[in-house]
Amino acid sequence: MNARLIGVGVGPGDPELITLKAARALAEADVVAHFAKAGNASNARRIVAQHLRPGVEELPLLYPMTTEVPQNAPAYRDAMRDFYDTSAARVAGHLDAGRIVAVLSEGDPLFYGSYMHLHVRLAPRYRVEVVPGVTAMSGCWSLAGAPIAQGDDVFVVLPATLPEAELERRFLDADAAVVMKLGRHLAKVRRVLERTGRLSRAIYVERGTTAESVTLRLEDKHDDDAPYFSVILVPGWEQRA
Amino acid sequence: MNARLIGVGVGPGDPELITLKAARALAEADVVAHFAKAGNASNARRIVAQHLRPGVEELPLLYPMTTEVPQNAPAYRDAMRDFYDTSAARVAGHLDAGRIVAVLSEGDPLFYGSYMHLHVRLAPRYRVEVVPGVTAMSGCWSLAGAPIAQGDDVFVVLPATLPEAELERRFLDADAAVVMKLGRHLAKVRRVLERTGRLSRAIYVERGTTAESVTLRLEDKHDDDAPYFSVILVPGWEQRA
Repeated sequence: MNARLIGVGVGPGDPELITLKAARALAEADVVAHFAKAGNASNARRIVAQHLRPGVEELPLLYPMTTEVPQNAPAYRDAMRDFYDTSAARVAGHLDAGRIVAVLSEGDPLFYGSYMHLHVRLAPRYRVEVVPGVTAMSGCWSLAGAPIAQGDDVFVVLPATLPEAELERRFLDADAAVVMKLGRHLAKVRRVLERTGRLSRAIYVERGTTAESVTLRLEDKHDDDAPYFSVILVPGWEQRA
Repeated sequence: MNARLIGVGVGPGDPELITLKAARALAEADVVAHFAKAGNASNARRIVAQHLRPGVEELPLLYPMTTEVPQNAPAYRDAMRDFYDTSAARVAGHLDAGRIVAVLSEGDPLFYGSYMHLHVRLAPRYRVEVVPGVTAMSGCWSLAGAPIAQGDDVFVVLPATLPEAELERRFLDADAAVVMKLGRHLAKVRRVLERTGRLSRAIYVERGTTAESVTLRLEDKHDDDAPYFSVILVPGWEQRA
């Protein structure tokens, strides 16, 4: 059987930041699946558009409309679980027909990616391969030219959704940090960075490595508007030698 | 002036895991620099060997012999500082002559990479670009098919050199973790994982994504021999839904 599921990391946004292996997976795939919000084009698909074979079968997996439901509500979790179950079943249908299915994943598939939900459902039953990708955070610190961690640094990734006191404790306990999922949490994160003496070295990056990217010292950003896909970098390696 | 320094991430080991942008940088470079231990071939060079232009000028940067000096001794730090100063001066010589110099970096250049030492010395004076790469840890969890972090997980990178009590505290305080620089510290890390109830989900990966790679559940590894370039993955995302 030729059938194979390939989780394909497509990198942080710049189409040149896909790997040779990802490009080959797209050339070999019979079906290319991608996640998107209903009504929106898939970001991941846009990144690899020039590598899709003309006429390749596409399988858009459209997130259910759940904006009116809080993310920690059982109804939200149930809707998402149903969505991933259904999506996995659709992919499985192609695998059962002997096809190679590539599932696109922004950044790296197994690092905070939606692909993971298909992986855990399908890996026990099908041949699966994961093509790692450049993470969004690597794209951001490279764009900013900011060495993030070195030597014996402890490096931590923090979701901005954490409570203020927990963020403070965790900043103080790490040499280097990246804060993800900023969105409406920027004001809180800024306060904590100031209180912990890290504001002056914090860097704000929005849509890193895309044509619309924005990079500036957080001190030079004078509003607290941030899209969901923005990050704050707090570089470690304080000796710099 | 055409002169430019490019820090080029070459990924975790599989030659197919370099990005299109890295391949282009290598095609454009007048000089390709790479770090290696004296007497050893550069790992990074081996990864990209097929992308080097025939006859391109190479600049090997050979670490000083410092194995007889403890890494935390002032003499070690002085020797390394001299080495990076000298290496930066050699690269600067090529930049002053108007050349494009690509410096190879295993994994991602600004994430625990030797390239960073040249970057901080040269970025204030020259045009610099950083091409991010797939990190060694992404290569390892992709090879293992192990989803590492999801949703609001806190993810941490820990050097195995940390004291046992600190490792224990930090494991208990993170949802997902990667332990780097295992080498002779594997027995200690194993004890801590067992004590913190994480041994059963720990995965050992040696030389991830290369032809010599080894992946197994840490429980199934019956010795404590580990090369420096091995990692332990402790996946988070415990709900898996």
